Amino acid sequence: MATKEGKAFKPGVLLKTPKGTRDWVGADLLLRDHIFNTISNIFKRHGGTPLDTPVFELKEILAEKYGEDSRLMYDLQDQGGELCSLRFDLTVPFARWVAMNNVTQVKRYQISKVYRRDQPAIARGRLREFYQCDFDIAGQCDPMIADAEIMCVVVEVFEALQLDITIKFNHRRILDGLFAVAGVPDDKIRAISSAVDKLDKIPWVEAKKEMVEDKGLPEEVADRIGGYVQHSGNISEMLEFLKSDEKLMANENVKAGVADISLLVSYLEAMDVANKVSFDLSLARGLDYYSGLIFEIIMTPPNIKGPTNPNDLGAPSLESKPRNASSQPQVGSIAAGGRYDNLVGMYGKRPIPCVGISFGIDRIYTLLDVRREKKPSALTQEIDVYVMAFGGKDFGGLLPERMSIARLLWNAGIRAEFSAKVIPKLTQQFKAAKDVPLAVILGEDELAAGQVRLKALGSGDDEAKQKDRGLLIYKKDLVEEVKKLLTAIVQA
Amino acid sequence: MATKEGKAFKPGVLLKTPKGTRDWVGADLLLRDHIFNTISNIFKRHGGTPLDTPVFELKEILAEKYGEDSRLMYDLQDQGGELCSLRFDLTVPFARWVAMNNVTQVKRYQISKVYRRDQPAIARGRLREFYQCDFDIAGQCDPMIADAEIMCVVVEVFEALQLDITIKFNHRRILDGLFAVAGVPDDKIRAISSAVDKLDKIPWVEAKKEMVEDKGLPEEVADRIGGYVQHSGNISEMLEFLKSDEKLMANENVKAGVADISLLVSYLEAMDVANKVSFDLSLARGLDYYSGLIFEIIMTPPNIKGPTNPNDLGAPSLESKPRNASSQPQVGSIAAGGRYDNLVGMYGKRPIPCVGISFGIDRIYTLLDVRREKKPSALTQEIDVYVMAFGGKDFGGLLPERMSIARLLWNAGIRAEFSAKVIPKLTQQFKAAKDVPLAVILGEDELAAGQVRLKALGSGDDEAKQKDRGLLIYKKDLVEEVKKLLTAIVQA
Repeated sequence: MATKEGKAFKPGVLLKTPKGTRDWVGADLLLRDHIFNTISNIFKRHGGTPLDTPVFELKEILAEKYGEDSRLMYDLQDQGGELCSLRFDLTVPFARWVAMNNVTQVKRYQISKVYRRDQPAIARGRLREFYQCDFDIAGQCDPMIADAEIMCVVVEVFEALQLDITIKFNHRRILDGLFAVAGVPDDKIRAISSAVDKLDKIPWVEAKKEMVEDKGLPEEVADRIGGYVQHSGNISEMLEFLKSDEKLMANENVKAGVADISLLVSYLEAMDVANKVSFDLSLARGLDYYSGLIFEIIMTPPNIKGPTNPNDLGAPSLESKPRNASSQPQVGSIAAGGRYDNLVGMYGKRPIPCVGISFGIDRIYTLLDVRREKKPSALTQEIDVYVMAFGGKDFGGLLPERMSIARLLWNAGIRAEFSAKVIPKLTQQFKAAKDVPLAVILGEDELAAGQVRLKALGSGDDEAKQKDRGLLIYKKDLVEEVKKLLTAIVQA
Repeated sequence: MATKEGKAFKPGVLLKTPKGTRDWVGADLLLRDHIFNTISNIFKRHGGTPLDTPVFELKEILAEKYGEDSRLMYDLQDQGGELCSLRFDLTVPFARWVAMNNVTQVKRYQISKVYRRDQPAIARGRLREFYQCDFDIAGQCDPMIADAEIMCVVVEVFEALQLDITIKFNHRRILDGLFAVAGVPDDKIRAISSAVDKLDKIPWVEAKKEMVEDKGLPEEVADRIGGYVQHSGNISEMLEFLKSDEKLMANENVKAGVADISLLVSYLEAMDVANKVSFDLSLARGLDYYSGLIFEIIMTPPNIKGPTNPNDLGAPSLESKPRNASSQPQVGSIAAGGRYDNLVGMYGKRPIPCVGISFGIDRIYTLLDVRREKKPSALTQEIDVYVMAFGGKDFGGLLPERMSIARLLWNAGIRAEFSAKVIPKLTQQFKAAKDVPLAVILGEDELAAGQVRLKALGSGDDEAKQKDRGLLIYKKDLVEEVKKLLTAIVQA
């Protein structure tokens, strides 16, 4: 019952949802709720407190937090009173809440929609209205402990969702130091950083071209950057590579970043999640407010894991060649985060160090949705019992009696329906009940004796179903018998 | 941890949420989620399918649906592209979805925030951003069956929430007919209807004054209206009263409305909910789109129930005299709805008859919140196990070991925390664990033997807690032992 962005006309009125938005309905929504529940249960395990903030914030609260992405913000019209914008992420509202309430220590989570006037790509799960699902740890603590716990949360979440992921990480201070050592002028650092960040999508020659031709970096500086950011290996090799470079290690930022990462790795090992992380010097991330560790979660590329069964949807390829429609959708990063120690302080309060992760629910949904389509049996059964009645020529429909039985079942928490016709036809009722496991069948004679018929509808053909008249039981035993049969059906 | 609309200044930046909005956090949010779950489980019992629509809709979709309330709509700024407004209710987006997807039959529910630029009154649960929780039945069916099921849903919801309510109902066609028979000119019907609708808040003399002096109705017409709408009694008395008035019954609208209500009552009796409803000729409801049965749910006034214990928060007074702050908050109607058979057709599609109910979650929350404050024990326990360590002079903190134990517990779905200090103090750890039922205590000697200590923290004083060193168990048995103890604690 998915309702994708759709259109229909009548004279004058365009019948659609706004650009980049969609309706969610039925099983789609239940799958999304399942993702929410899975994730929030893990947040709760880690002592997370839920937070819900308004969908719009004062415009000045959001100002100067998002760099050049700010142009994608939705503003509310000035109708008198305060100027507001729709929230752009959940991190800035969280920082506003921390500052406003003088919170000094908290683990909070929030699952809410955010809004960006970006170019939508619905098939890849990129919309203008989309869910984020954030977990953040705020407060003074010893270095890298909270950062390691966030990564552990990431691993637990994707284990629970059965998605095989890799956490790519880097450190803003290492990146800053590395650019400085390579000879990037201060005023070009953000522009060069953004070119480096594209290295997961474009080859080095193109990134270098952008740096040199578009951004005016001397070629030898670009080559020095290339020597660093193209380096790859496991974490201890990467740390050795950095530590062995005396020029780099003479830079205070690089030194501090390397110390942080060495400590982080020891904690990740203690939590048994070190095998899920990968140190990537080319990871830069766009947002202004990150100040330390940064990370991005991708589906583990199959070439890392060796040959992959193309039907194993847990490990899609992220290589850049176009893939056909039947394969795993390419969704890019499915979660991202980092440390932002200065954001709360921007509101004029005491700075509170924070680190957090944001899960891209719509992209995760897109991945799980493909898997679901392969297992139609996983669809939920929406109604347990259909209450029906039939009789001879003078049959009056027994509507009040069907209502009364339905109420009995509803009161017991059983999902029940009946035909909204005074005198329903037998075939109509069986048709309406085709996906329902049980039927209660009323007849005048049985009711007079305080009895009803209960029958499992099973998967036989319609004619067979209609012939079997079911089990005759007393009304007072109905709820108990229904529960027994439902349990048996679930276990079968 | 409630965060009410709050303010704090720094030079230039006002640190607050926008007017009429608030943050929700911690136990407040968990109570709200509990209300959502309770209600949506009942919707599911009735075969409800969830729907989620975008927070904004095209402006022209919302146009001409809300009468004079339209001025309260939030518009998005024109940033190029489509003109949009924040949704004002969930009914119009539902009708848009039905029309856009050519749905002919559905029971759908939606729990989402809606937006109205009204004067906020936070203590009474009236905000500019607030939740609605809607259940609607769309599609052709025999008369009043769906209407009766909606009322049954209402009764089940408030039974589950343990709130003692009354469903006041009326019929738009009876009201229209009654105004026509009384002599109200067609062009004054909406204005007079709105004056009548105030009769739950103001006495008849004031309403009459508004009709005659402000709205120019001849006094004798107003008096005739008064003769009708002030009439009260139980449902069968009310039906008798209407049926005995030949002039009224000569009006086609009144006749059709009376027939509908007679049928409705027989269905409500079959579903055993007739004792919760009350026929109120003065109920009119503001929204344009209602076309048949209308209803509004209020807390049952104590005078209907006889003497009420003032501590029984299930039955607050709704009388108009001001009440002191310590008593039940006055929230007005806590749910409302009705039949709207023409709304879907306004989008140029085949008209689909609909009837639905909208629950005012923030008002229901306000009622339940007062009750919760009386039962602090009902607060949720947020963490199950605190992992701590202590040792002698050379104690290194055992941080990786605490992390490893925490990961073991998290993996088993157990909520666990540990101090984010490399070398935490014993007293700090006990303080942090003060609301936590269990502690796992690590020591170097025990760990060397593959063992840890597990202890119930109970409610003793800090000193006693610190002396008892707990049960010595093997690490491999930890999860099982923790689960056993937690079960025992929950059952105690």
